[in-house]
Amino acid sequence: MGRYDLALIGFGGVNRALAELIAHSGERLAKELGFALRVVAITDLRAGSLVDTDGIDLVPLLAAEPGELSFADLAGGSAEPRNEWVIREVPADIVVEATFTNPTDGEPALSHVRWALESGKHVTTTNKGPVALAGRTLKRLAAERGLGFEYEGSVLSGTPVLRTAERMFGGLQISGVEGVMNGTSNYILGRLEEGVDLAAAIAEAQAHGYAEADPTADVEGHDVRLKVMILANEVLGANLRREDVFCEGIRAITPDVVRDAASKGLRWKLVGSATRHEDGSVDARVAPVALPAHHPLAGVSGPANAVAFHTDLLGTVTVSGPGAGRVETAYALLSDIIAIHQRHAGDDARPALQETHRV
Amino acid sequence: MGRYDLALIGFGGVNRALAELIAHSGERLAKELGFALRVVAITDLRAGSLVDTDGIDLVPLLAAEPGELSFADLAGGSAEPRNEWVIREVPADIVVEATFTNPTDGEPALSHVRWALESGKHVTTTNKGPVALAGRTLKRLAAERGLGFEYEGSVLSGTPVLRTAERMFGGLQISGVEGVMNGTSNYILGRLEEGVDLAAAIAEAQAHGYAEADPTADVEGHDVRLKVMILANEVLGANLRREDVFCEGIRAITPDVVRDAASKGLRWKLVGSATRHEDGSVDARVAPVALPAHHPLAGVSGPANAVAFHTDLLGTVTVSGPGAGRVETAYALLSDIIAIHQRHAGDDARPALQETHRV
Repeated sequence: MGRYDLALIGFGGVNRALAELIAHSGERLAKELGFALRVVAITDLRAGSLVDTDGIDLVPLLAAEPGELSFADLAGGSAEPRNEWVIREVPADIVVEATFTNPTDGEPALSHVRWALESGKHVTTTNKGPVALAGRTLKRLAAERGLGFEYEGSVLSGTPVLRTAERMFGGLQISGVEGVMNGTSNYILGRLEEGVDLAAAIAEAQAHGYAEADPTADVEGHDVRLKVMILANEVLGANLRREDVFCEGIRAITPDVVRDAASKGLRWKLVGSATRHEDGSVDARVAPVALPAHHPLAGVSGPANAVAFHTDLLGTVTVSGPGAGRVETAYALLSDIIAIHQRHAGDDARPALQETHRV
Repeated sequence: MGRYDLALIGFGGVNRALAELIAHSGERLAKELGFALRVVAITDLRAGSLVDTDGIDLVPLLAAEPGELSFADLAGGSAEPRNEWVIREVPADIVVEATFTNPTDGEPALSHVRWALESGKHVTTTNKGPVALAGRTLKRLAAERGLGFEYEGSVLSGTPVLRTAERMFGGLQISGVEGVMNGTSNYILGRLEEGVDLAAAIAEAQAHGYAEADPTADVEGHDVRLKVMILANEVLGANLRREDVFCEGIRAITPDVVRDAASKGLRWKLVGSATRHEDGSVDARVAPVALPAHHPLAGVSGPANAVAFHTDLLGTVTVSGPGAGRVETAYALLSDIIAIHQRHAGDDARPALQETHRV
C-alpha cells in the first residue's frame, strides 16, 4: 500500500480535525482508500514548527489544548513557524494549506501554495484567497509540474461543489451558477425574519461563533464574492477579478422588509451568482434577493449552504450541505487528497523525491 | 477520435431525445468528450427494428411523428422489434436500454440487459426494474466480462445521485439516505396543501401528463420503493428484496391533514428512506412524512426531486434536480456513456469485436 506524507501548514481547527481523523481513523481509511496518510511536518503561527520525517506522533499534540501548544521544546521543533523552509525543504508528498485567508492579496496562503508547487509537492487548501485571486496562475504552475492543486474546501467546506461541477456535468452546457454560501448572513436573515434587528442578530451570530469579531466579510458579502469568483472561474470559464463582481451585503435589509416578504412566501437570501452570456462573457454579483418559495435556494437554512447549477439539458441541479465547520472542512482536505491520489498515483511524472519515503 | 456504436432498445421519448442530442449536438459533444456516438440499431415495440452497421441516418426518423414511425419499409428494417437478435447479433459497443419497467419481475428490460452483457456489450439503462430486482447479479455479470453497466437514470433521471454517492463520498461512512423521488405524488401533496382533494389532484396530475393512466405506482409508493431499493443496495451495501421494504402511499392523506401541518410549518412529503444500523443491517421504507421546514427535503417542490445522504464527517448532503423528463433522462444515458468511456477506454479486456468498427 502506498502512503502520502503530509506537511500541515496552519494547525487551527481544520488541520487539527484532519490530524484527529488520521490519528483515530487512519487505519480504516487506509483500508478503504488504498493509501495511508502520515504527517511529517506541522507549522502554526503560534505553536511554531515541528518536523519528523519518520512521522509525527499526533496523539500527544491533539491531547494539548490548542492555545497551549508549543513545538519549541519538542525534538524537531521550533518556536518559529518557518513556513517557507518547511514547505520547500521537508520531503512531503502533499502540502495541506489551512491558514487564514487575506481576501485582498491571498497572502500568506498564496505564497504557501506557490512554494509547494515550485518544490514539487501536491497542494490541497481550504483557502479562498489563493484560488479566487490567483487560481489560474497556480493551476498552470501545477499542470506544468504534473502536480495536483485541489481546493474543494474553498467553497462550502467539504460539500462536493467544485468536484460536482468538474465531474458530474460532462456534456452539459452550464449557463449560470448561484449559491447561498455564507452561513453567518443566512443566520442573520433568518433572525430578521423572526423580528430581531440587524445589530442584535449580528451580536447573536458572534455569540454563537458563526461570525468573526469583525463581521464585515460576512455581512458585506466579501466572503461570498470570493466564492462567486471561484465558481465563475471554475465552472463558467471566466477570469474575474474582485472589482468585476458587484457586491452588496445585507446591511440595508430590515426586519420589516424580510417579514413582509415572508408573508408573501418570499425568502430573503444573500445570493452570489454568475451568468454566462451568449458571447461567452460572464457577469457575477453578490446581493440580497427575495426568492420565491419554489426556488431551489429558498429553503436553505440552518448550517446548510447550497449551490445551484443551471444547465441546458438537466435544468437546475442543486447541491446543498454544510457551509463550514472544522470536521466538514477537514473532509474537504481528505477529498482533495483522494482526488490527488486518483489522478497521480502511478504517475511517472512525480518527482523521484517521493519514492524514498513511500512504503 | 474513438467512437461508440449504440443499439437503442426502445424508441420512446427518452431514446428519441438521446437520438436528437446525437443528431443535433453530436459534433460539439464529440469535441468536448473525446469520442463520437453513432446509432447502428433501433428497436421499438411499435415501430419494429432498424439496423445499419454504417450508422442510421437519424434525421428522417426524428422528423416523423412518434406514433407514425414504422421501420418495416426501410432498408435494414423490420416490423418486428427482434430485441434479442438485435442485442445479441448487431455489432454495437453499447446497448442503450430504455423500454418500460415491469416493477414485479423487471422484464423485459432485465433480459435486454442480460443479453447485452452476455454478448459482450456495455449497457446503460434508465429502467429501475432490472437494477432494483437483479442489480447484484447483473453487476457481477458485467464485472466478469469487463463491461460497463450504468443506470444513473433509474433514480432522479439525469440528476447525478448514484454517481455522487459513488464518486463524491470517498472516506465517508454513509448511515442513511432519504429522498423525495416521485414527482407525481409530490405534485399531488402540493395540491392537497392548496385544498384540492385527492381524486381531483390525481386527475390533474394525469391531465398534466405527470401520472400514468393507472396512477397506482405513483400514489401507492411502488415507484419510490424500487428507487429506495436501488439506493439502499448501491449506497448502503444492502441486498433488499421488494418485500423487505415497508411501503405506504399517500392515499390516506387528506387536504385537512396537509393544511393543518402546513399551518404549523410542516410539509407532507412521500419519503423513501433507508438506514444502516450498527450491525450492518439496513431498514428501508416508503411512507408519507410531515417534515419540519428546515429539513433538506421539505422545500422540494415543482418538478424537482431530491436525495439526502447522511454521513459521519459531512453531516447531510443533498442533491436535488429533475426527477423525470425525456431530455433529462436522456442525459442520464449520456452521463452513463461518459462513465463507460472513462472506465473502459483503452481497456484491453474489451472484446475484439469492437475494434473492427471504431474509427
